[in-house]
Amino acid sequence: MEIAARRLEAELENIPLVDPHSHINPHAPAAKSLTDLLGYHYYTELAHAAGMPRADLDLHGWPLVEKLGRWLPALANTVQYGWLVQLAQTFFGYDKETIGPADVAGLFDAVAQRTATPNWPDEVFRKTNLEAIFLTNDFDDPLEGFDTARYVPCLRTDDLVFKWDQPAVQARFTKATAIEATSLSLFLDGLGMLFERFVAKGARACAISLPPDFEPVRPDEVESEEGFDRLVRDRGSFDDLRMVGYRIFYALADRCEEFNLPFDLMIGVRRNVYEGGAFQGTDLFDQRTSLYQYRRLFNEKPRVKFPVSVLTHMQNQELVAYSWIFPNVLPCGHWWYSNIPTYIDADLRARLEAVPAGKQIGYYSDAYKLEFVLPKFAMYRRSLANVLLRDFVLARGWSEERALELGKAVLRDNVLDVFGRPGPRGSHS
Amino acid sequence: MEIAARRLEAELENIPLVDPHSHINPHAPAAKSLTDLLGYHYYTELAHAAGMPRADLDLHGWPLVEKLGRWLPALANTVQYGWLVQLAQTFFGYDKETIGPADVAGLFDAVAQRTATPNWPDEVFRKTNLEAIFLTNDFDDPLEGFDTARYVPCLRTDDLVFKWDQPAVQARFTKATAIEATSLSLFLDGLGMLFERFVAKGARACAISLPPDFEPVRPDEVESEEGFDRLVRDRGSFDDLRMVGYRIFYALADRCEEFNLPFDLMIGVRRNVYEGGAFQGTDLFDQRTSLYQYRRLFNEKPRVKFPVSVLTHMQNQELVAYSWIFPNVLPCGHWWYSNIPTYIDADLRARLEAVPAGKQIGYYSDAYKLEFVLPKFAMYRRSLANVLLRDFVLARGWSEERALELGKAVLRDNVLDVFGRPGPRGSHS
Amino acid sequence: MEIAARRLEAELENIPLVDPHSHINPHAPAAKSLTDLLGYHYYTELAHAAGMPRADLDLHGWPLVEKLGRWLPALANTVQYGWLVQLAQTFFGYDKETIGPADVAGLFDAVAQRTATPNWPDEVFRKTNLEAIFLTNDFDDPLEGFDTARYVPCLRTDDLVFKWDQPAVQARFTKATAIEATSLSLFLDGLGMLFERFVAKGARACAISLPPDFEPVRPDEVESEEGFDRLVRDRGSFDDLRMVGYRIFYALADRCEEFNLPFDLMIGVRRNVYEGGAFQGTDLFDQRTSLYQYRRLFNEKPRVKFPVSVLTHMQNQELVAYSWIFPNVLPCGHWWYSNIPTYIDADLRARLEAVPAGKQIGYYSDAYKLEFVLPKFAMYRRSLANVLLRDFVLARGWSEERALELGKAVLRDNVLDVFGRPGPRGSHS
Repeated sequence: MEIAARRLEAELENIPLVDPHSHINPHAPAAKSLTDLLGYHYYTELAHAAGMPRADLDLHGWPLVEKLGRWLPALANTVQYGWLVQLAQTFFGYDKETIGPADVAGLFDAVAQRTATPNWPDEVFRKTNLEAIFLTNDFDDPLEGFDTARYVPCLRTDDLVFKWDQPAVQARFTKATAIEATSLSLFLDGLGMLFERFVAKGARACAISLPPDFEPVRPDEVESEEGFDRLVRDRGSFDDLRMVGYRIFYALADRCEEFNLPFDLMIGVRRNVYEGGAFQGTDLFDQRTSLYQYRRLFNEKPRVKFPVSVLTHMQNQELVAYSWIFPNVLPCGHWWYSNIPTYIDADLRARLEAVPAGKQIGYYSDAYKLEFVLPKFAMYRRSLANVLLRDFVLARGWSEERALELGKAVLRDNVLDVFGRPGPRGSHS
Repeated sequence: MEIAARRLEAELENIPLVDPHSHINPHAPAAKSLTDLLGYHYYTELAHAAGMPRADLDLHGWPLVEKLGRWLPALANTVQYGWLVQLAQTFFGYDKETIGPADVAGLFDAVAQRTATPNWPDEVFRKTNLEAIFLTNDFDDPLEGFDTARYVPCLRTDDLVFKWDQPAVQARFTKATAIEATSLSLFLDGLGMLFERFVAKGARACAISLPPDFEPVRPDEVESEEGFDRLVRDRGSFDDLRMVGYRIFYALADRCEEFNLPFDLMIGVRRNVYEGGAFQGTDLFDQRTSLYQYRRLFNEKPRVKFPVSVLTHMQNQELVAYSWIFPNVLPCGHWWYSNIPTYIDADLRARLEAVPAGKQIGYYSDAYKLEFVLPKFAMYRRSLANVLLRDFVLARGWSEERALELGKAVLRDNVLDVFGRPGPRGSHS
Repeated sequence: MEIAARRLEAELENIPLVDPHSHINPHAPAAKSLTDLLGYHYYTELAHAAGMPRADLDLHGWPLVEKLGRWLPALANTVQYGWLVQLAQTFFGYDKETIGPADVAGLFDAVAQRTATPNWPDEVFRKTNLEAIFLTNDFDDPLEGFDTARYVPCLRTDDLVFKWDQPAVQARFTKATAIEATSLSLFLDGLGMLFERFVAKGARACAISLPPDFEPVRPDEVESEEGFDRLVRDRGSFDDLRMVGYRIFYALADRCEEFNLPFDLMIGVRRNVYEGGAFQGTDLFDQRTSLYQYRRLFNEKPRVKFPVSVLTHMQNQELVAYSWIFPNVLPCGHWWYSNIPTYIDADLRARLEAVPAGKQIGYYSDAYKLEFVLPKFAMYRRSLANVLLRDFVLARGWSEERALELGKAVLRDNVLDVFGRPGPRGSHS
């Protein structure tokens, strides 16, 4: 059984990847030093959780790496540490099974040397068998200076929905659209311009992350306008911000429908729970949340595809059930705190057993640097191979070929079908 | 290990089934055409979720089957599709591993031909190793014209608790009881008559499905009477409906105690979440619910057995714990969105590890047509065999014989012990 | 694979145990009769849940054992029954695989005989490979007359936080501290004395169990004083009790910081849900709870270690995530309703995959009599060995030696590191 599972895994490795969600900076997509890799929030937050003083995390370059190196043995059991070892071995000629305090200096040099080679990102793409990767672009990102068929723009909208009361956000909006959004109507005009720009640049999705208590209702139009006015004039009340946020959220859904863009919902994150945490290591969740909160949206927008990520394993059954009932709800990836084999195994299995295969976006890397795409997808492929073997080949008598086709659908084909093939919009199948 | 598990599974297949919950129509228990099988809500809702237009689901007969056939490949990964293939092979001489657009015409003819044979339901009973099956009867069902030892009546009470404000429901009640329930007291009299009729006809349970926010408290009697009056006179308020619903719910529990009927609680369903969904494919859930909401009921009615079904895997641990503490709470089956191997495996294992064996109602088919009893129970038996082998034979050193006895208890014996042997009440052990 | 897992398990058995949470009475740590063993609430509550009349549970000695014996076959599938068989075999020369009505008389005699031998507790310690075990001491426990290096005091504080309105609790406080706590300020003085006494006696933790809706906020000081006055004078209102409870809870955290004591939080229990239940068999839970409720505490007290136990499997992912982010949150054991292999397997695996190893307190027995430490830890070690083999040795290519080191950390080393080595405080590493 182990042999057959690894055979399936090897076959899955031959399938070129299109990674439908990441935080890659297309102007600096790969690491330039070990700092870029060890500085990933997983390592800083885990090291801090293990005891590394918060102040040490404000170091940079070699001093940061040297400190973090001392804490690596404390994380050696985690799968995130496993990603680091695997990428060191694959990309930087590292040949040990562990990385400890005595190893980081050598690895630091190796990373500096290798990443300095011309076309290093291309080499990472090649070794990763990666064709294209989706980005997370702020609404005011000019989207200039990179190949959008390889680095696929994606409009991230958290700031518009949750921070519209902030003058800085309003100013960015004005700068990006040349529209001073002093009214809801003007805001909506500007939003249309942003969608046009993103779509023209090959954007393939709109995306947002949402807190556990978000329960969107399309607000009354007159009330929305009045609340919007108060927010812009004097930052309004908490209720104004929530109502205007819901109104903007629905405006995004309207535009997604108009421009035929999937709207990625990333559900469940509670921001800034640990105020003294590492950079990007302060967010957690509250398990008390339900997809039932989105019933109005799903009913109102049947023509918008909603690839949904849930932050918790507990919510995966809701995701399975809502995807099996709603044509426009699609299970998407294994996000953040659910991105460990324990939860991937169970969540993936339930999806494969009860959601039509063609709707499932299997996995995305969520990576900040390209080097992490490989070990993260490797972790996913291992779970996928195990589930395909055990629950389809063995339990249901499928041939390995048929199981592999299913794996290919969730790993690659559906990404292209749901979001469209990366590149200029005309090539959207 | 695989071999031993399949050996246990084969032994479990020899145990005759009494299926303690279904939606079988005793006047048309088996399919008469492939439409009856492919029309099962699992296929219509999954096909719709995969992209089949809602309007096509309003077709009938061959045109519906032909359309659904085109969408079957999109569902081929689901366990529900697996049920269809297995029943086609078992009952209709089908010999392929998949059913696609090119296969439905032949299968349509085969089903029409076989199901037209005299005594087709008997043949399904025989091949399924099925002795008796429980029904879901409306309170105004006359319960005439079928063998109640084979098709066991069960009083379904959702309409009384949740729709008593509807004149149509009141009219049905009047017709069924010859009592115009213009007061709570008259209603209770009529309810007593219904219980007497059902019990006389061999009913073995009272049943109801409940929403996630149901938290029954026995209301004050005077307030109940006044609310009941308002509901009957002018449909009352939402609060009246809820209070009267709670009062009727407690009245049902009172009658269950009086008539020694188990009261099946099916907890967690939220009706009509997807308004545009397929027939019977519009209901979902909200995971935020707790058995703690039923503490007053469980405390007040120690002599009533409550076989409890929970809609979600997340609530299974509550079901295990409440069954391990309350003598009158019994875990029952794997319901609907939890009826897939991922969740059956884990939920079953927890129950077998921590709930006294004799309290566990292992499984029911929930079927609308007899042909589905076989593949659904086959799915359950596979999980059961795997858990018995891995967690009892291997992990705890049990003999296969002892494990099989445990399997027989949850699969069959407990159904007879808890609900009583089907047939006239005198035969109730 | 089975062979390798059992080899790891055998290695884990060689690691001496320090059990960081129990309810052992140091003046009567081991059983004196089978009544002490069969009287454990797991057997009384499960027997009652299986049908044993509540009144029979009020029997004592042989009559109780004789009655319970009749119900044992009804529990024979549970893991708790498995503990009983294993301890009977290990400690009392029992050689059958089951214990039934015909067996209890012989076992009753055997237990009486063996436990009467001099130094019986020492023999249990030896056979269990147990070095020390933590207690659960009421705040007014004199902590006299036992070896605190073997029986480690631990200050249990539920009464102070949840029952301060009760004159009996106030009287016990006065007796224990010689301070009549007529004001919050006097109470805090007395609390300091209690901490001093406990720490002087080698206490290694403060502990409390908490209901699902506990959401502590440090109350305003003046309001706390006024509420405290009302509670002491006339028992106050429900709101007073809650506010004062929160204030006392924060006072405990303050003292834990001052005295460098870990503060064990045992989260999720709802007391007295089944009013007619067996002694200690009346408590259950409500799954609707979140660690988010403790965000203020975790932020305010970075220097206090909070070993957190969660009552439900559903909350384990929160525990994993909060432990991976907050330096002061530590996952601790597998508590009560989650203490069965189904949940240990999954919860342990998630922790080992995503929480720094050194923070994890693997297991505690929660035992009332020493004889239960062995079978409970045996159950845990089996899960641990399986996870180490499957998810580290096989899935990640670790050597068995490395996996065993990880097992040793969570099983033993971390207990000493987090709580300190038992014995007089000077020996605290």
